[in-house]
Amino acid sequence: MSYSEIPGGVTAAQGYLAGSVYCGIKTANSSRPDLALIHSTHHTVAAGTFTTNRVKAAPVRVSIAHLRGGGDVRSIIANSGNANACTGLAGIETAKRMAAATAAALELKPRQVMVCSTGRIGVPLPIEKIEASIAKLPQALSDDGSKRAAEAIMTSDTFAKEMAVEFEVDGKAVRLGGIAKGAGMIDPNMATMLCFLTTDAAIEKKQLQHALSVSVEQSFNRITVDGDMSTNDTVLMLANGLAGNKPLHHGTPAFKLFQRALDHVTKHLARMIVEDGEGVTKFVEVHVNGATTLSDARKAAEAVANSTLTKCAWFGGDPNWGRIMDALGYSGAKMREETVDIFYDGIIAVKGGMPSKTPFNKLQEIVAQKKFTITIDLHVGSAEYTVFTTDLSTNYVKLNMGE
Amino acid sequence: MSYSEIPGGVTAAQGYLAGSVYCGIKTANSSRPDLALIHSTHHTVAAGTFTTNRVKAAPVRVSIAHLRGGGDVRSIIANSGNANACTGLAGIETAKRMAAATAAALELKPRQVMVCSTGRIGVPLPIEKIEASIAKLPQALSDDGSKRAAEAIMTSDTFAKEMAVEFEVDGKAVRLGGIAKGAGMIDPNMATMLCFLTTDAAIEKKQLQHALSVSVEQSFNRITVDGDMSTNDTVLMLANGLAGNKPLHHGTPAFKLFQRALDHVTKHLARMIVEDGEGVTKFVEVHVNGATTLSDARKAAEAVANSTLTKCAWFGGDPNWGRIMDALGYSGAKMREETVDIFYDGIIAVKGGMPSKTPFNKLQEIVAQKKFTITIDLHVGSAEYTVFTTDLSTNYVKLNMGE
Repeated sequence: MSYSEIPGGVTAAQGYLAGSVYCGIKTANSSRPDLALIHSTHHTVAAGTFTTNRVKAAPVRVSIAHLRGGGDVRSIIANSGNANACTGLAGIETAKRMAAATAAALELKPRQVMVCSTGRIGVPLPIEKIEASIAKLPQALSDDGSKRAAEAIMTSDTFAKEMAVEFEVDGKAVRLGGIAKGAGMIDPNMATMLCFLTTDAAIEKKQLQHALSVSVEQSFNRITVDGDMSTNDTVLMLANGLAGNKPLHHGTPAFKLFQRALDHVTKHLARMIVEDGEGVTKFVEVHVNGATTLSDARKAAEAVANSTLTKCAWFGGDPNWGRIMDALGYSGAKMREETVDIFYDGIIAVKGGMPSKTPFNKLQEIVAQKKFTITIDLHVGSAEYTVFTTDLSTNYVKLNMGE
Repeated sequence: MSYSEIPGGVTAAQGYLAGSVYCGIKTANSSRPDLALIHSTHHTVAAGTFTTNRVKAAPVRVSIAHLRGGGDVRSIIANSGNANACTGLAGIETAKRMAAATAAALELKPRQVMVCSTGRIGVPLPIEKIEASIAKLPQALSDDGSKRAAEAIMTSDTFAKEMAVEFEVDGKAVRLGGIAKGAGMIDPNMATMLCFLTTDAAIEKKQLQHALSVSVEQSFNRITVDGDMSTNDTVLMLANGLAGNKPLHHGTPAFKLFQRALDHVTKHLARMIVEDGEGVTKFVEVHVNGATTLSDARKAAEAVANSTLTKCAWFGGDPNWGRIMDALGYSGAKMREETVDIFYDGIIAVKGGMPSKTPFNKLQEIVAQKKFTITIDLHVGSAEYTVFTTDLSTNYVKLNMGE
């Protein structure tokens, strides 16, 4: 049993509508839609994972409360251009008003609405503009509105990110898809990213939360662009049961298929986020194995993936494995210089902590590519970890110099 | 009792000579001296602090062994252009040969020589060139050779870094001075930096090591340019007793004066390293207070000082305190968003986690300066910590794209 990719993104599954409107939050790019809505026409169970940053934006706090409330979540409302973060009690109030206005327009209770914001921190959210526009949103909803919603949550993203799959359970076609946005502040543990996932599978809330948590750990928690974790990161998932399968239970073949399908979607969206990172010219997979513990493997991989010197070298097409050795050395992971092997796309560059016989220009050819893999074997244990990262370009700096 | 600044750097104190020669290690800038020697004409006691990176360059390992040997250290030999790191047993051998050649030229034992290297990692050190040039070094030594030695250890530094002070102990004039190099891979815990200090004070080895360790913790361990800690960081200090004071002992007023004088020199040199960081256009002091523990204060200050997004914003003259709040949130330090105050040069920007009434253009004026201070009060305790950092410029990326 397997799954296949299908079009449709977050509206690929039965019973979901999406759309967007322009409400004028951003001063620049003023004609671009900046308010997205995803709506389920039927009852759902919902799951979510949120930023672990101690500074949490107001909409994150409100959505966590609504999710814990356990109600029948029917809508996700999200604006771009303003993060509604570091806005105090007034910010909480505006996030609540955003949920309430959405609920009123769709004849729901406020706690049936999840709220998300992304954009600049510390600026009051222009709630009146949003309220005025939310009234127009129900008419903008359609069962092929995924791309419009994906576009409305973009900040410095350069393309809309959608993915969906279909698979069979109990002879029934089940669909699962989603949209995401990324760009800046991307670091393990989710970063400034939003991801909204929907499925028509029948599954209990706890089972859905388990599957989502596992999937996020393997995807969004493993990507890094600049090492900064944002205040607004949110992944939400709705399941409405319209596919008519028997409810999925952990441990069964059907659940495993569901998990693999979900992982395919989240990994694909995570990869698109990295590829579309601010100023990114190269996509690099850093794989560490032979570490003493998983925690050590992760420390080592993240130190390499976040080293500004390593990332600048990749931008310039310089293999510079010395900077990788250096990052491994300060990562905090247990390691012995003498046992480290480093490979570029499988070609050995460092053998036992020293240069291999591979000609330097062979390594240069690999680093000249838009995508390559660095594999590091510490040879002190058997734990492994992978991080997806990028180079650090002059354009990244220019994009983040100010607005 | 106080101290006053004097010229002379590492040769300001009595009994020290310094000089440099060109031996051709670097392919570019080929006319620049690349081998420096500092020599004491009299017996010394020596102290040192070294990189905590698990990947330690060969000269670091050799110098640690020579320092532990407890011998009468008389010379420091240092090359630029090649780090002699990740060079395996052959690298250890070349570092030993570098010490042996210096010892032969000056009629010393090899363990009386400290060896340092700085430059690219993973390239075999051209020891024959160095050996050929070391023979010429004794004639190049002079009691006003500090600047020449400081120049010879420069890599991407744009100016030579020297500092010296004089003070009085037991009615005797005591001098203390040094030279340093920095530029890239500068992070708390010393980075790719070398610093050589000399004094004519009389002091026992243990007392000297104590004073040096305290001083390094307050200076070189608090600077960051790019968050990368190098394999070669070394601070060495020699004391020859020629001033004729009674040996300094911890706890006495004379020792305290010595410590303050030493701190003045190390802080001054550390500050010069940051100001001369690769592509740096701004020097920023990040001061965190009101933290629960010293460790938390440090985590918070380092997260802000190393955030690429914060550093890019400073480069662009954008106060963007939202990125500071974000970094505090993921720093791991205990904090509550609602109690955070942030000041720019003493002007309040954030009050209780939210924007203050200070006009944005007032903050822009401060961040437009070449030097400014960010003060963060977490209001959850009384611990504090300061880090000296820089912006992150397009030029930094260009300088680190490859060689």
